[in-house]
Amino acid sequence: MAGQQIVLIGLSGVGKSTVGRALAERLGWPFLDTDDLITEAEGSTPAELIDRDGEPGFRKIEERVVADAAKRTPAVIATGGGAFLSASNRAALGQQGFICFLDATPSAIASRLRAGSSGERRPLLGDDPADLDTRLYQLDRERRRFYSHADIWVPVQPFGDDDTSVLTAAVDRILRAWATDASRLIGLPRRLERLSADAPAIGPAAVVDTGRERYPIWVGAGELDRLPDRLEQLDLAGRRVFLISDSEVIDQHGRRAAEALDAGGIAGASYIIPSGEQSKGLQVAREIYAWLAEQRAERRDLVVALGGGVVGDLGGYVAATYLRGMPFIQVPTTVLAMNDAAIGGKVAVDLPDGKNLVGAFYQPRGVVSDVSTLRTLPGRAFAEGFAEVIKHAWILDPELLGELEARPDAYQPHSDVEVLADVTARSARLKALIVSSDPEERGLRAILNYGHTIGHAIEATTGYTEFLHGEAVGIGMMGAARIAHGLGLIDEELVARHGDLLRGFGLPIGSSSIDVERVMGAMLLDKKVEQGQLRFVLLEGVGRPVVRGDVPEDLVRSVVRDLARG
Amino acid sequence: MAGQQIVLIGLSGVGKSTVGRALAERLGWPFLDTDDLITEAEGSTPAELIDRDGEPGFRKIEERVVADAAKRTPAVIATGGGAFLSASNRAALGQQGFICFLDATPSAIASRLRAGSSGERRPLLGDDPADLDTRLYQLDRERRRFYSHADIWVPVQPFGDDDTSVLTAAVDRILRAWATDASRLIGLPRRLERLSADAPAIGPAAVVDTGRERYPIWVGAGELDRLPDRLEQLDLAGRRVFLISDSEVIDQHGRRAAEALDAGGIAGASYIIPSGEQSKGLQVAREIYAWLAEQRAERRDLVVALGGGVVGDLGGYVAATYLRGMPFIQVPTTVLAMNDAAIGGKVAVDLPDGKNLVGAFYQPRGVVSDVSTLRTLPGRAFAEGFAEVIKHAWILDPELLGELEARPDAYQPHSDVEVLADVTARSARLKALIVSSDPEERGLRAILNYGHTIGHAIEATTGYTEFLHGEAVGIGMMGAARIAHGLGLIDEELVARHGDLLRGFGLPIGSSSIDVERVMGAMLLDKKVEQGQLRFVLLEGVGRPVVRGDVPEDLVRSVVRDLARG
Repeated sequence: MAGQQIVLIGLSGVGKSTVGRALAERLGWPFLDTDDLITEAEGSTPAELIDRDGEPGFRKIEERVVADAAKRTPAVIATGGGAFLSASNRAALGQQGFICFLDATPSAIASRLRAGSSGERRPLLGDDPADLDTRLYQLDRERRRFYSHADIWVPVQPFGDDDTSVLTAAVDRILRAWATDASRLIGLPRRLERLSADAPAIGPAAVVDTGRERYPIWVGAGELDRLPDRLEQLDLAGRRVFLISDSEVIDQHGRRAAEALDAGGIAGASYIIPSGEQSKGLQVAREIYAWLAEQRAERRDLVVALGGGVVGDLGGYVAATYLRGMPFIQVPTTVLAMNDAAIGGKVAVDLPDGKNLVGAFYQPRGVVSDVSTLRTLPGRAFAEGFAEVIKHAWILDPELLGELEARPDAYQPHSDVEVLADVTARSARLKALIVSSDPEERGLRAILNYGHTIGHAIEATTGYTEFLHGEAVGIGMMGAARIAHGLGLIDEELVARHGDLLRGFGLPIGSSSIDVERVMGAMLLDKKVEQGQLRFVLLEGVGRPVVRGDVPEDLVRSVVRDLARG
Repeated sequence: MAGQQIVLIGLSGVGKSTVGRALAERLGWPFLDTDDLITEAEGSTPAELIDRDGEPGFRKIEERVVADAAKRTPAVIATGGGAFLSASNRAALGQQGFICFLDATPSAIASRLRAGSSGERRPLLGDDPADLDTRLYQLDRERRRFYSHADIWVPVQPFGDDDTSVLTAAVDRILRAWATDASRLIGLPRRLERLSADAPAIGPAAVVDTGRERYPIWVGAGELDRLPDRLEQLDLAGRRVFLISDSEVIDQHGRRAAEALDAGGIAGASYIIPSGEQSKGLQVAREIYAWLAEQRAERRDLVVALGGGVVGDLGGYVAATYLRGMPFIQVPTTVLAMNDAAIGGKVAVDLPDGKNLVGAFYQPRGVVSDVSTLRTLPGRAFAEGFAEVIKHAWILDPELLGELEARPDAYQPHSDVEVLADVTARSARLKALIVSSDPEERGLRAILNYGHTIGHAIEATTGYTEFLHGEAVGIGMMGAARIAHGLGLIDEELVARHGDLLRGFGLPIGSSSIDVERVMGAMLLDKKVEQGQLRFVLLEGVGRPVVRGDVPEDLVRSVVRDLARG
């Protein structure tokens, strides 16, 4: 009978009941909602019980109900948002349950709650709808470390108006994962030990869980020194390591990396490419292949990409293709790579005809982001990375956006590492959530291209030398904001906020080097073109991205012309 | 309630009861075995009923029982081997059931039956164990066309002694597929129409079903002319086609291909590489990338590889990597490609350091094998392809082996196309079964390397010019047979049969061009090496391959020395 129980955890409003009922219907199992069970048993709703007994009193009742529910199989069990914070609840649910963390951004959950407001009171969210976002952000911060001990993470981030298909996809994904894993996970002693710990260890900052691959993203100061431990945690200890890095990175961090690997007793070799985008081509890939052949690298060995986006993209591409695929680890050393390039398995090399034209979707086994490596980053490279953080904030996270707008000067190479770790972890989590939903970019993942349609074209037409990638994306976001305004999607004030924020981070918002017609032409060779139609990610508001394929070319041209005024 | 029913079909003894019971236990659903239901209802076993009433009488009873069972949900239903031949049974089971075809070779099923002989009588298999193989081959031929209308194909081919993990993997795979597809498949009107047809259309010769991708392999004369229909069936009509082929193939079949595409109104362009292995490198790949960029190929367009193994491997590799992956179709025009290279998603290019060192596992959307293209194949190229057919026969199919041994001269470029289609379909089916089980070569798929450890090394050390791939594999199989004999696994007679069969097909069994020490060295750079240990696929008998990592180097050297004597 082992394994006939699926448990859903996550914030109030994330969709546990909807997903749980659908799962139960597919499986022919009963559906149990612990909040409903409490209401039945006590004759009062959780909200009423909290009003009456206070939260501690309610939690006691909840523990009793959860303990009973956890004994029932087969069953799909949706828990109240706070139930998983109790060690005894975790231990009870972990006995037979396959535990699924339904994850979405707090602002998405808030929208879902507002849209579906059934008059049902959510006890811990307060009564004032205006506080909803704030309260959800706070709960997310408090609870995520507990939720992160789930067996799988299931992204339920909405995309467009069709919330149903997101929740249906979650049902499919849970069923698939349960079908694959349930018999293996249930009853693993280490898992139970971890679950039932009073204060479970803080897990990785984020997890990418595509339904096929699952890997952690660690973010912190000193992660580079902990590399051997991380390999151990990933079951990759004892493999030969083929480290790929670039000349600048190796000057700055090579010794620490080598010492860490030596201390861990890890054998291997390293290959250093010249730093800069010009290394990211088939020629350098070919040289690395030859080196791997000479080193007699085997399929079970490990590629480690230590560096920025170029090293990660190229190293990942080589790992994806040598011997038809070797395992690899991303160890990003730039803001850009930590927040964007290293997460999500897009690996590629450039062709003379365009950037990233040859590549693969190939997920790393883990991402190890040591924010202390950011200290050596030149100011301009540091700033360009924040373009991607800003992007995540615009499309997904009003709270993060507010913090960035409030203190753009708080983020500098020499800022406190905890500040850098916090912003990196939050931004990485957003990226992980989106790529988990849509690893091969069939839908939702496209929103990560905010600012990239124009940005890529600007890079391409200036030979990838005039602007850093993040700078071009910043200009692209500026352009996207103006296009959205031109279509009447957002007001002038939001456009102005784009400009202010980018300037606050020292990023350009236009440039006289832009050649309008060449940029227009380059956009049409972009991978994002579909059946000859340009597609733009635009905002309808903060945290509300849409993909539009119907932007008039004249509007685009006039916006690019504006950007070219500098 | 739709979709809470899983139906298992396949030959008697393939493992339906074992898999069905395990599925039912995982899901908490009842398990129904239609043979058991018949015994309960009638007080006699199917075997007794057939003895008493003859097969037609029994089938009537079976239809009644199946019709009742098909109404029950949730349920896992295992059907008798012949039940799915009845149109009314198919229609009944298709109403709510997710239909899974458990597939293995007849000889594997025979071994399973012999090993597990519980004294249970299998009504249609006869009482004489000696007839078992023959009878199963006959049933396989009669029934496969009906089974092939299942919703999924589930490979249950045993590997080594551990039959349990094969059946457990089948359970996982069925659950995953059901979780993904059930809600979509159940009740599709066209599916029901197809299932309930009195004589369902003959489907493709084989299906690769990796659990993630599923695609058909069509084999026949005139398939090239039917290409537009095939694209239509694959839902790929209306895409631009980028055809990749080589100079020889295009001379011979280019006009037919172009006429077929034109007749289908398919737009596109073609790129012709020089024929021969030297085209299969990164340089030519780069030229094709540049061409695709110039053509503004998009992610939704289609790559078609028309030709032999070089075109398929290279075209497939380009498709796997351009824009991070475009859909592609294999249209093989050689015996080798139809039986081996085009099936299973191994795509690659060569490096100066070794063959196929850079590549991917990337499945095509379909394989279209027109055996009439084999007419133009030179005798030597025709014969080398049969090395792979012979390989499939040795490792998997005693019946096919017997036919090849009986009449090696029956297979010539100008043989009747039906004869060529039959042998190609059977061999392709064996390959499809194995790669379906293990698409990324983590276990079972390794048996397809029979003859390849030595074969690849011979090719590498003779500069890929002296021997065609199949010729080298033939010599490698000869070597593998001698190694197996040296280890006491097989007797002298089986070694002699290797030599006779290869000679019968005009294939070499040794050569004075072999440089013993260089071949020994080259084997150690092969992808098949694991932790410095050479691995060999060896036979313990016809259809009984094993993978051995413990062959003494001295034995290998002495065998290679024998091969070098010519």
